[in-house]
Amino acid sequence: MERDCFTLELAVRDYECDLQGVVNNAVYQNYLEHARHEYLRSISIDFAALTALGINLVVTRVEIDYKASLVSGDRFVVEVRPERISPLRIGFRQDIYRLPDRKIVVKALVTGAALNAKGRPQLPEALQDVLDRA
Amino acid sequence: MERDCFTLELAVRDYECDLQGVVNNAVYQNYLEHARHEYLRSISIDFAALTALGINLVVTRVEIDYKASLVSGDRFVVEVRPERISPLRIGFRQDIYRLPDRKIVVKALVTGAALNAKGRPQLPEALQDVLDRA
Amino acid sequence: MERDCFTLELAVRDYECDLQGVVNNAVYQNYLEHARHEYLRSISIDFAALTALGINLVVTRVEIDYKASLVSGDRFVVEVRPERISPLRIGFRQDIYRLPDRKIVVKALVTGAALNAKGRPQLPEALQDVLDRA
Amino acid sequence: MERDCFTLELAVRDYECDLQGVVNNAVYQNYLEHARHEYLRSISIDFAALTALGINLVVTRVEIDYKASLVSGDRFVVEVRPERISPLRIGFRQDIYRLPDRKIVVKALVTGAALNAKGRPQLPEALQDVLDRA
Repeated sequence: MERDCFTLELAVRDYECDLQGVVNNAVYQNYLEHARHEYLRSISIDFAALTALGINLVVTRVEIDYKASLVSGDRFVVEVRPERISPLRIGFRQDIYRLPDRKIVVKALVTGAALNAKGRPQLPEALQDVLDRA
Repeated sequence: MERDCFTLELAVRDYECDLQGVVNNAVYQNYLEHARHEYLRSISIDFAALTALGINLVVTRVEIDYKASLVSGDRFVVEVRPERISPLRIGFRQDIYRLPDRKIVVKALVTGAALNAKGRPQLPEALQDVLDRA
Repeated sequence: MERDCFTLELAVRDYECDLQGVVNNAVYQNYLEHARHEYLRSISIDFAALTALGINLVVTRVEIDYKASLVSGDRFVVEVRPERISPLRIGFRQDIYRLPDRKIVVKALVTGAALNAKGRPQLPEALQDVLDRA
Repeated sequence: MERDCFTLELAVRDYECDLQGVVNNAVYQNYLEHARHEYLRSISIDFAALTALGINLVVTRVEIDYKASLVSGDRFVVEVRPERISPLRIGFRQDIYRLPDRKIVVKALVTGAALNAKGRPQLPEALQDVLDRA
Protein backbone atom coordinates (compact mmCIF):
# COMPACT_ATOMS: atom_id res chain seq x y z
CA MET A 1 0.00 0.00 0.00
CA GLU A 2 2.64 2.49 1.10
CA ARG A 3 5.22 1.39 -1.44
CA ASP A 4 5.60 4.91 -2.81
CA CYS A 5 5.64 6.68 0.53
CA PHE A 6 9.02 8.33 1.09
CA THR A 7 9.81 9.54 4.60
CA LEU A 8 12.43 11.92 5.96
CA GLU A 9 13.11 12.37 9.65
CA LEU A 10 14.23 15.79 10.87
CA ALA A 11 14.48 17.84 14.06
CA VAL A 12 13.40 21.40 14.76
CA ARG A 13 16.21 23.95 14.80
CA ASP A 14 15.75 26.82 17.26
CA TYR A 15 16.21 29.53 14.61
CA GLU A 16 13.13 28.12 12.85
CA CYS A 17 10.94 29.13 15.80
CA ASP A 18 9.35 32.58 15.88
CA LEU A 19 8.27 34.90 18.66
CA GLN A 20 5.29 32.66 19.48
CA GLY A 21 7.87 30.00 20.42
CA VAL A 22 6.72 27.62 17.68
CA VAL A 23 8.06 26.76 14.23
CA ASN A 24 7.03 29.60 11.91
CA ASN A 25 4.33 28.70 9.36
CA ALA A 26 6.56 29.41 6.36
CA VAL A 27 9.26 27.05 7.65
CA TYR A 28 7.00 24.03 7.08
CA GLN A 29 7.22 24.81 3.38
CA ASN A 30 11.00 24.55 3.73
CA TYR A 31 10.55 21.14 5.36
CA LEU A 32 8.13 20.04 2.62
CA GLU A 33 10.46 21.22 -0.16
CA HIS A 34 13.50 19.56 1.39
CA ALA A 35 11.61 16.26 1.74
CA ARG A 36 10.39 16.45 -1.88
CA HIS A 37 13.91 17.10 -3.15
CA GLU A 38 15.27 14.21 -1.07
CA TYR A 39 12.49 12.04 -2.47
CA LEU A 40 13.42 13.10 -6.01
CA ARG A 41 17.07 12.33 -5.27
CA SER A 42 15.99 8.85 -4.10
CA ILE A 43 14.59 8.19 -7.59
CA SER A 44 17.71 9.69 -9.20
CA ILE A 45 16.26 13.11 -9.99
CA ASP A 46 18.70 15.82 -8.90
CA PHE A 47 16.85 19.16 -8.54
CA ALA A 48 19.97 21.33 -8.81
CA ALA A 49 21.39 19.36 -11.74
CA LEU A 50 18.08 19.63 -13.61
CA THR A 51 18.06 23.38 -12.95
CA ALA A 52 21.58 23.66 -14.36
CA LEU A 53 20.31 21.88 -17.50
CA GLY A 54 17.54 24.45 -17.90
CA ILE A 55 14.79 22.14 -16.68
CA ASN A 56 12.87 23.82 -13.90
CA LEU A 57 10.69 21.90 -11.50
CA VAL A 58 8.14 24.42 -10.31
CA VAL A 59 5.45 24.43 -7.66
CA THR A 60 2.14 25.70 -9.01
CA ARG A 61 -0.04 25.33 -5.92
CA VAL A 62 0.21 24.46 -2.24
CA GLU A 63 -2.53 23.67 0.24
CA ILE A 64 -1.40 23.31 3.82
CA ASP A 65 -3.54 22.52 6.86
CA TYR A 66 -1.85 23.37 10.11
CA LYS A 67 -3.05 20.89 12.74
CA ALA A 68 -0.54 21.39 15.55
CA SER A 69 2.71 23.23 16.23
CA LEU A 70 6.24 21.96 16.48
CA VAL A 71 8.46 23.49 19.16
CA SER A 72 12.13 23.57 20.08
CA GLY A 73 13.52 20.09 20.57
CA ASP A 74 10.81 18.29 18.58
CA ARG A 75 11.67 15.56 16.13
CA PHE A 76 9.32 14.87 13.24
CA VAL A 77 8.89 12.95 10.02
CA VAL A 78 7.88 14.33 6.63
CA GLU A 79 6.05 11.91 4.33
CA VAL A 80 5.96 12.27 0.55
CA ARG A 81 3.43 10.46 -1.69
CA PRO A 82 3.50 11.31 -5.40
CA GLU A 83 0.28 11.14 -7.41
CA ARG A 84 -0.71 12.11 -10.94
CA ILE A 85 -2.85 15.24 -11.11
CA SER A 86 -2.98 15.49 -14.92
CA PRO A 87 -0.75 14.34 -17.80
CA LEU A 88 1.70 17.15 -17.08
CA ARG A 89 1.04 17.85 -13.42
CA ILE A 90 2.31 15.91 -10.43
CA GLY A 91 0.95 16.11 -6.92
CA PHE A 92 2.72 15.36 -3.66
CA ARG A 93 0.67 14.43 -0.61
CA GLN A 94 2.88 15.49 2.27
CA ASP A 95 2.10 14.98 5.93
CA ILE A 96 4.27 15.94 8.86
CA TYR A 97 4.04 13.95 12.09
CA ARG A 98 5.68 14.75 15.40
CA LEU A 99 7.85 11.98 16.85
CA PRO A 100 7.61 9.75 18.74
CA ASP A 101 3.84 10.18 19.28
CA ARG A 102 3.00 10.63 15.57
CA LYS A 103 0.69 13.55 16.32
CA ILE A 104 -0.31 15.07 13.00
CA VAL A 105 1.23 18.53 12.54
CA VAL A 106 0.70 19.44 8.90
CA LYS A 107 -1.27 17.97 6.01
CA ALA A 108 -0.30 19.32 2.61
CA LEU A 109 -0.90 18.85 -1.08
CA VAL A 110 1.77 20.37 -3.30
CA THR A 111 1.20 20.48 -7.05
CA GLY A 112 4.05 20.91 -9.49
CA ALA A 113 5.13 20.77 -13.07
CA ALA A 114 8.40 20.64 -14.98
CA LEU A 115 9.33 23.14 -17.68
CA ASN A 116 11.98 22.02 -20.15
CA ALA A 117 14.71 24.19 -21.64
CA LYS A 118 12.23 25.45 -24.26
CA GLY A 119 9.77 26.49 -21.54
CA ARG A 120 7.39 23.63 -22.40
CA PRO A 121 5.87 21.40 -19.70
CA GLN A 122 7.59 18.01 -19.67
CA LEU A 123 7.84 15.68 -16.67
CA PRO A 124 11.20 13.91 -16.26
CA GLU A 125 10.97 10.21 -17.20
CA ALA A 126 11.73 8.95 -13.69
CA LEU A 127 8.68 10.84 -12.43
CA GLN A 128 6.52 9.49 -15.28
CA ASP A 129 7.57 5.99 -14.27
CA VAL A 130 6.66 6.57 -10.63
CA LEU A 131 3.27 7.95 -11.61
CA ASP A 132 2.61 5.05 -14.00
CA ARG A 133 3.19 2.65 -11.12
CA ALA A 134 1.19 4.64 -8.54
CA MET B 1 -15.63 47.91 -3.21
CA GLU B 2 -12.00 47.83 -2.16
CA ARG B 3 -12.52 49.75 1.08
CA ASP B 4 -10.98 46.98 3.17
CA CYS B 5 -8.08 46.23 0.85
CA PHE B 6 -4.77 46.89 2.59
CA THR B 7 -1.65 47.02 0.41
CA LEU B 8 2.04 46.82 1.21
CA GLU B 9 4.78 47.54 -1.32
CA LEU B 10 8.03 45.62 -1.01
CA ALA B 11 11.12 44.73 -3.07
CA VAL B 12 12.81 41.38 -3.56
CA ARG B 13 15.99 40.88 -1.53
CA ASP B 14 18.67 38.78 -3.24
CA TYR B 15 18.99 36.33 -0.33
CA GLU B 16 15.33 35.43 -0.87
CA CYS B 17 16.16 33.95 -4.30
CA ASP B 18 17.13 30.31 -4.59
CA LEU B 19 19.31 28.35 -6.99
CA GLN B 20 16.67 28.65 -9.73
CA GLY B 21 17.31 32.41 -9.57
CA VAL B 22 13.76 33.18 -8.43
CA VAL B 23 12.19 33.97 -5.07
CA ASN B 24 11.84 30.66 -3.21
CA ASN B 25 8.26 29.38 -2.82
CA ALA B 26 8.37 29.49 0.98
CA VAL B 27 9.44 33.15 0.97
CA TYR B 28 6.06 34.22 -0.40
CA GLN B 29 4.58 32.99 2.87
CA ASN B 30 6.95 35.38 4.63
CA TYR B 31 5.67 38.21 2.42
CA LEU B 32 2.05 37.22 3.09
CA GLU B 33 2.61 37.04 6.85
CA HIS B 34 4.43 40.36 6.97
CA ALA B 35 1.62 42.06 5.00
CA ARG B 36 -1.03 40.52 7.30
CA HIS B 37 0.81 41.72 10.40
CA GLU B 38 1.18 45.20 8.92
CA TYR B 39 -2.52 45.15 8.11
CA LEU B 40 -3.32 44.15 11.69
CA ARG B 41 -1.07 46.94 12.96
CA SER B 42 -3.04 49.37 10.76
CA ILE B 43 -6.20 48.46 12.69
CA SER B 44 -4.33 48.68 16.00
CA ILE B 45 -3.76 44.95 16.50
CA ASP B 46 -0.13 44.31 17.48
CA PHE B 47 0.79 40.66 16.81
CA ALA B 48 3.79 40.60 19.16
CA ALA B 49 1.93 42.43 21.95
CA LEU B 50 -1.01 39.99 21.68
CA THR B 51 1.44 37.09 21.83
CA ALA B 52 3.00 38.54 24.98
CA LEU B 53 -0.52 38.68 26.49
CA GLY B 54 -1.03 34.98 25.77
CA ILE B 55 -3.35 35.56 22.82
CA ASN B 56 -2.06 33.66 19.82
CA LEU B 57 -3.15 34.47 16.30
CA VAL B 58 -2.66 31.24 14.40
CA VAL B 59 -2.85 30.23 10.77
CA THR B 60 -4.94 27.10 10.29
CA ARG B 61 -4.77 26.76 6.49
CA VAL B 62 -3.08 28.32 3.49
CA GLU B 63 -3.86 27.89 -0.20
CA ILE B 64 -1.35 29.50 -2.54
CA ASP B 65 -1.45 29.51 -6.34
CA TYR B 66 1.88 30.41 -7.87
CA LYS B 67 1.23 32.25 -11.14
CA ALA B 68 4.61 33.78 -11.95
CA SER B 69 8.02 34.22 -10.33
CA LEU B 70 9.63 37.27 -8.82
CA VAL B 71 13.35 37.77 -9.47
CA SER B 72 16.19 39.92 -8.16
CA GLY B 73 15.37 43.61 -8.46
CA ASP B 74 11.59 43.18 -8.68
CA ARG B 75 9.24 45.40 -6.73
CA PHE B 76 5.81 44.09 -5.84
CA VAL B 77 2.68 44.79 -3.84
CA VAL B 78 0.95 42.47 -1.40
CA GLU B 79 -2.81 42.95 -1.00
CA VAL B 80 -4.77 41.90 2.08
CA ARG B 81 -8.57 41.53 2.15
CA PRO B 82 -10.12 40.17 5.36
CA GLU B 83 -13.31 38.12 5.16
CA ARG B 84 -15.34 36.12 7.65
CA ILE B 85 -15.01 32.36 7.21
CA SER B 86 -17.06 31.36 10.26
CA PRO B 87 -17.92 32.99 13.61
CA LEU B 88 -14.44 32.21 14.93
CA ARG B 89 -12.43 31.98 11.72
CA ILE B 90 -11.08 34.82 9.65
CA GLY B 91 -9.84 34.58 6.09
CA PHE B 92 -7.37 36.79 4.29
CA ARG B 93 -7.46 36.97 0.51
CA GLN B 94 -3.92 37.91 -0.39
CA ASP B 95 -2.67 38.59 -3.90
CA ILE B 96 0.85 39.58 -4.88
CA TYR B 97 1.39 41.67 -8.01
CA ARG B 98 4.68 42.58 -9.63
CA LEU B 99 5.26 46.31 -10.14
CA PRO B 100 4.95 48.33 -12.24
CA ASP B 101 3.16 45.99 -14.67
CA ARG B 102 0.81 44.44 -12.04
CA LYS B 103 1.43 40.95 -13.37
CA ILE B 104 -0.18 38.52 -10.94
CA VAL B 105 2.45 36.49 -9.05
CA VAL B 106 0.60 34.77 -6.23
CA LYS B 107 -3.03 34.31 -5.26
CA ALA B 108 -3.58 33.10 -1.71
CA LEU B 109 -6.25 32.44 0.86
CA VAL B 110 -4.98 32.28 4.43
CA THR B 111 -7.35 31.16 7.17
CA GLY B 112 -6.70 31.92 10.81
CA ALA B 113 -8.09 31.97 14.28
CA ALA B 114 -7.20 33.53 17.61
CA LEU B 115 -6.71 31.53 20.78
CA ASN B 116 -7.06 33.42 24.04
CA ALA B 117 -4.99 32.88 27.17
CA LYS B 118 -7.29 29.99 28.15
CA GLY B 119 -6.74 28.31 24.78
CA ARG B 120 -10.26 29.15 23.62
CA PRO B 121 -10.94 30.61 20.16
CA GLN B 122 -11.76 34.32 20.46
CA LEU B 123 -11.24 36.91 17.73
CA PRO B 124 -9.91 40.30 18.91
CA GLU B 125 -12.65 42.98 18.84
CA ALA B 126 -10.94 45.08 16.19
CA LEU B 127 -11.06 42.09 13.84
CA GLN B 128 -14.72 41.43 14.69
CA ASP B 129 -15.47 45.06 13.79
CA VAL B 130 -13.69 44.77 10.45
CA LEU B 131 -15.58 41.58 9.63
CA ASP B 132 -18.91 43.09 10.65
CA ARG B 133 -18.28 45.91 8.20
CA ALA B 134 -16.99 43.68 5.38
CA MET C 1 33.29 63.07 5.22
CA GLU C 2 30.31 60.80 4.73
CA ARG C 3 30.22 61.15 0.95
CA ASP C 4 30.45 57.41 0.41
CA CYS C 5 28.05 56.39 3.15
CA PHE C 6 25.02 54.65 1.66
CA THR C 7 22.01 54.13 3.93
CA LEU C 8 18.96 51.89 3.67
CA GLU C 9 15.98 52.16 5.98
CA LEU C 10 14.07 48.98 6.83
CA ALA C 11 11.61 47.63 9.38
CA VAL C 12 11.67 44.38 11.35
CA ARG C 13 9.34 41.67 10.04
CA ASP C 14 7.83 39.42 12.71
CA TYR C 15 9.04 36.20 11.06
CA GLU C 16 12.60 37.46 11.53
CA CYS C 17 12.20 37.27 15.32
CA ASP C 18 13.07 34.06 17.14
CA LEU C 19 11.85 32.43 20.33
CA GLN C 20 13.72 35.01 22.42
CA GLY C 21 11.38 37.60 20.86
CA VAL C 22 14.24 39.44 19.14
CA VAL C 23 15.58 39.48 15.60
CA ASN C 24 17.66 36.31 15.18
CA ASN C 25 21.43 36.85 14.95
CA ALA C 26 21.68 35.38 11.46
CA VAL C 27 19.01 37.73 10.13
CA TYR C 28 21.31 40.74 10.59
CA GLN C 29 23.53 39.19 7.93
CA ASN C 30 20.50 39.22 5.63
CA TYR C 31 20.03 42.92 6.39
CA LEU C 32 23.72 43.60 5.79
CA GLU C 33 23.74 41.70 2.47
CA HIS C 34 20.58 43.40 1.25
CA ALA C 35 22.00 46.84 2.06
CA ARG C 36 25.30 46.00 0.30
CA HIS C 37 23.46 44.83 -2.81
CA GLU C 38 21.30 47.96 -2.81
CA TYR C 39 24.48 50.01 -2.43
CA LEU C 40 26.03 48.18 -5.38
CA ARG C 41 22.88 48.78 -7.41
CA SER C 42 23.18 52.51 -6.58
CA ILE C 43 26.59 52.54 -8.31
CA SER C 44 25.20 50.50 -11.22
CA ILE C 45 26.54 47.11 -10.13
CA ASP C 46 23.78 44.49 -10.39
CA PHE C 47 24.65 41.46 -8.22
CA ALA C 48 22.33 39.05 -10.03
CA ALA C 49 23.35 40.25 -13.49
CA LEU C 50 27.04 39.85 -12.60
CA THR C 51 26.33 36.34 -11.32
CA ALA C 52 24.59 35.49 -14.61
CA LEU C 53 27.76 36.67 -16.41
CA GLY C 54 29.90 34.31 -14.35
CA ILE C 55 31.33 37.04 -12.13
CA ASN C 56 30.80 36.13 -8.50
CA LEU C 57 31.00 38.68 -5.72
CA VAL C 58 31.91 36.68 -2.66
CA VAL C 59 32.17 37.42 1.04
CA THR C 60 35.44 36.17 2.51
CA ARG C 61 35.04 37.32 6.10
CA VAL C 62 32.51 38.93 8.42
CA GLU C 63 32.99 40.43 11.86
CA ILE C 64 29.81 41.43 13.62
CA ASP C 65 29.47 42.99 17.06
CA TYR C 66 25.97 42.71 18.47
CA LYS C 67 25.33 45.76 20.64
CA ALA C 68 21.56 45.66 21.11
CA SER C 69 18.54 43.75 19.83
CA LEU C 70 15.83 44.78 17.42
CA VAL C 71 12.29 43.65 18.22
CA SER C 72 8.92 43.47 16.47
CA GLY C 73 7.83 46.87 15.20
CA ASP C 74 11.33 48.42 15.17
CA ARG C 75 12.52 50.51 12.26
CA PHE C 76 16.24 50.76 11.59
CA VAL C 77 18.85 52.00 9.17
CA VAL C 78 21.73 50.03 7.67
CA GLU C 79 24.81 52.04 6.71
CA VAL C 80 27.35 50.92 4.12
CA ARG C 81 30.84 52.43 3.80
CA PRO C 82 33.18 50.80 1.24
CA GLU C 83 36.92 50.82 1.89
CA ARG C 84 39.92 49.23 0.20
CA ILE C 85 41.39 46.29 2.12
CA SER C 86 43.97 45.29 -0.49
CA PRO C 87 44.29 45.63 -4.28
CA LEU C 88 41.77 42.83 -4.81
CA ARG C 89 39.78 42.96 -1.56
CA ILE C 90 37.04 45.39 -0.65
CA GLY C 91 35.68 46.00 2.82
CA PHE C 92 32.28 47.28 3.85
CA ARG C 93 31.89 49.00 7.23
CA GLN C 94 28.26 48.39 8.06
CA ASP C 95 26.46 49.73 11.10
CA ILE C 96 22.82 49.20 11.98
CA TYR C 97 21.02 51.84 14.07
CA ARG C 98 17.52 51.63 15.53
CA LEU C 99 15.20 54.46 14.58
CA PRO C 100 14.29 57.04 15.64
CA ASP C 101 16.71 57.02 18.61
CA ARG C 102 19.75 55.89 16.57
CA LYS C 103 20.76 53.37 19.25
CA ILE C 104 23.58 51.27 17.81
CA VAL C 105 22.45 47.68 17.19
CA VAL C 106 25.18 46.08 15.10
CA LYS C 107 28.69 47.07 14.01
CA ALA C 108 30.09 44.97 11.19
CA LEU C 109 33.03 44.70 8.83
CA VAL C 110 32.37 42.56 5.78
CA THR C 111 35.27 41.72 3.46
CA GLY C 112 34.70 40.57 -0.08
CA ALA C 113 36.27 39.88 -3.43
CA ALA C 114 35.10 39.34 -6.98
CA LEU C 115 35.98 36.29 -9.03
CA ASN C 116 35.71 36.62 -12.80
CA ALA C 117 34.48 33.97 -15.21
CA LYS C 118 37.97 32.40 -15.20
CA GLY C 119 37.93 32.17 -11.38
CA ARG C 120 40.50 34.97 -11.05
CA PRO C 121 40.03 37.82 -8.55
CA GLN C 122 39.01 41.01 -10.38
CA LEU C 123 37.04 43.88 -8.86
CA PRO C 124 34.40 45.42 -11.14
CA GLU C 125 35.49 48.87 -12.44
CA ALA C 126 32.70 50.74 -10.68
CA LEU C 127 33.99 49.39 -7.36
CA GLN C 128 37.60 50.29 -8.27
CA ASP C 129 36.42 53.84 -8.96
CA VAL C 130 34.65 54.11 -5.62
CA LEU C 131 37.73 52.83 -3.80
CA ASP C 132 40.05 55.21 -5.68
CA ARG C 133 37.88 58.10 -4.51
CA ALA C 134 37.50 56.87 -0.93
CA MET D 1 43.03 16.95 23.25
CA GLU D 2 39.69 17.02 21.45
CA ARG D 3 37.67 15.86 24.46
CA ASP D 4 35.47 18.93 24.36
CA CYS D 5 34.91 18.98 20.62
CA PHE D 6 31.25 18.43 19.82
CA THR D 7 30.35 17.62 16.23
CA LEU D 8 27.07 17.70 14.32
CA GLU D 9 26.66 16.25 10.84
CA LEU D 10 24.17 17.92 8.49
CA ALA D 11 23.31 18.13 4.79
CA VAL D 12 22.63 21.16 2.61
CA ARG D 13 18.96 21.81 1.88
CA ASP D 14 18.25 23.30 -1.54
CA TYR D 15 16.29 26.27 -0.16
CA GLU D 16 19.46 27.32 1.68
CA CYS D 17 21.20 27.97 -1.65
CA ASP D 18 20.96 31.41 -3.25
CA LEU D 19 21.06 32.64 -6.84
CA GLN D 20 24.82 31.98 -6.99
CA GLY D 21 23.95 28.29 -6.53
CA VAL D 22 25.78 28.07 -3.20
CA VAL D 23 24.68 28.12 0.43
CA ASN D 24 23.97 31.76 1.31
CA ASN D 25 26.48 33.37 3.69
CA ALA D 26 23.88 34.04 6.38
CA VAL D 27 22.80 30.39 6.43
CA TYR D 28 26.14 29.34 7.89
CA GLN D 29 25.19 31.31 10.99
CA ASN D 30 22.06 29.16 11.18
CA TYR D 31 24.25 26.06 11.00
CA LEU D 32 26.59 27.44 13.67
CA GLU D 33 23.69 28.36 15.99
CA HIS D 34 22.01 24.99 15.57
CA ALA D 35 25.25 23.16 16.35
CA ARG D 36 25.84 25.33 19.44
CA HIS D 37 22.33 24.67 20.71
CA GLU D 38 22.75 20.94 20.12
CA TYR D 39 26.06 21.12 21.95
CA LEU D 40 24.37 22.90 24.86
CA ARG D 41 21.63 20.27 24.88
CA SER D 42 24.34 17.59 25.07
CA ILE D 43 25.52 19.12 28.37
CA SER D 44 21.91 19.45 29.56
CA ILE D 45 21.46 23.14 28.79
CA ASP D 46 18.15 23.69 26.96
CA PHE D 47 18.21 27.02 25.12
CA ALA D 48 14.43 27.34 24.82
CA ALA D 49 13.81 26.27 28.43
CA LEU D 50 16.36 28.81 29.69
CA THR D 51 14.68 31.50 27.58
CA ALA D 52 11.31 30.60 29.13
CA LEU D 53 12.93 31.06 32.57
CA GLY D 54 14.08 34.56 31.61
CA ILE D 55 17.72 33.57 31.14
CA ASN D 56 18.89 34.71 27.73
CA LEU D 57 21.97 33.28 26.10
CA VAL D 58 23.12 35.99 23.73
CA VAL D 59 25.75 36.23 21.03
CA THR D 60 27.88 39.34 21.41
CA ARG D 61 30.28 38.88 18.49
CA VAL D 62 30.87 36.60 15.52
CA GLU D 63 33.91 36.31 13.28
CA ILE D 64 33.47 34.07 10.27
CA ASP D 65 36.05 33.27 7.60
CA TYR D 66 34.49 31.82 4.46
CA LYS D 67 37.00 29.41 2.93
CA ALA D 68 34.88 27.48 0.42
CA SER D 69 31.25 27.12 -0.58
CA LEU D 70 28.80 24.33 0.07
CA VAL D 71 26.42 23.42 -2.75
CA SER D 72 23.27 21.36 -3.23
CA GLY D 73 23.78 17.77 -2.12
CA ASP D 74 26.79 18.44 0.11
CA ARG D 75 27.08 16.86 3.52
CA PHE D 76 29.15 18.60 6.16
CA VAL D 77 30.10 18.58 9.82
CA VAL D 78 29.97 21.48 12.26
CA GLU D 79 32.46 21.38 15.13
CA VAL D 80 31.97 23.20 18.42
CA ARG D 81 34.79 23.87 20.90
CA PRO D 82 33.95 25.98 23.95
CA GLU D 83 36.62 28.19 25.52
CA ARG D 84 36.65 30.80 28.24
CA ILE D 85 37.00 34.36 26.93
CA SER D 86 36.59 36.12 30.28
CA PRO D 87 34.88 35.29 33.60
CA LEU D 88 31.48 36.06 32.10
CA ARG D 89 32.12 35.46 28.41
CA ILE D 90 32.25 32.17 26.60
CA GLY D 91 33.71 31.57 23.15
CA PHE D 92 32.87 28.84 20.69
CA ARG D 93 35.44 27.88 18.05
CA GLN D 94 33.31 26.51 15.25
CA ASP D 95 34.63 25.02 12.04
CA ILE D 96 32.57 23.59 9.20
CA TYR D 97 34.08 20.85 7.02
CA ARG D 98 32.62 19.37 3.87
CA LEU D 99 32.22 15.60 3.88
CA PRO D 100 33.67 13.22 3.01
CA ASP D 101 36.80 15.13 1.92
CA ARG D 102 36.94 17.36 5.06
CA LYS D 103 37.65 20.45 2.97
CA ILE D 104 37.43 23.45 5.29
CA VAL D 105 34.37 25.61 4.49
CA VAL D 106 34.02 28.02 7.40
CA LYS D 107 36.13 28.95 10.41
CA ALA D 108 34.28 30.90 13.07
CA LEU D 109 34.64 32.30 16.57
CA VAL D 110 31.36 33.09 18.27
CA THR D 111 31.40 34.93 21.59
CA GLY D 112 28.44 34.89 23.93
CA ALA D 113 27.18 35.67 27.38
CA ALA D 114 24.20 34.78 29.51
CA LEU D 115 21.90 37.35 31.09
CA ASN D 116 19.85 36.19 34.06
CA ALA D 117 16.27 37.19 34.83
CA LYS D 118 17.57 40.39 36.47
CA GLY D 119 19.51 41.30 33.32
CA ARG D 120 22.85 40.51 34.99
CA PRO D 121 25.53 38.43 33.25
CA GLN D 122 25.66 34.94 34.75
CA LEU D 123 26.89 31.81 32.97
CA PRO D 124 24.85 28.65 33.64
CA GLU D 125 26.71 26.23 35.95
CA ALA D 126 27.00 23.49 33.33
CA LEU D 127 28.90 25.93 31.10
CA GLN D 128 31.12 27.04 34.00
CA ASP D 129 31.98 23.38 34.59
CA VAL D 130 32.88 22.82 30.95
CA LEU D 131 35.10 25.90 30.94
CA ASP D 132 36.78 24.89 34.19
CA ARG D 133 37.72 21.58 32.58
CA ALA D 134 38.79 23.08 29.23
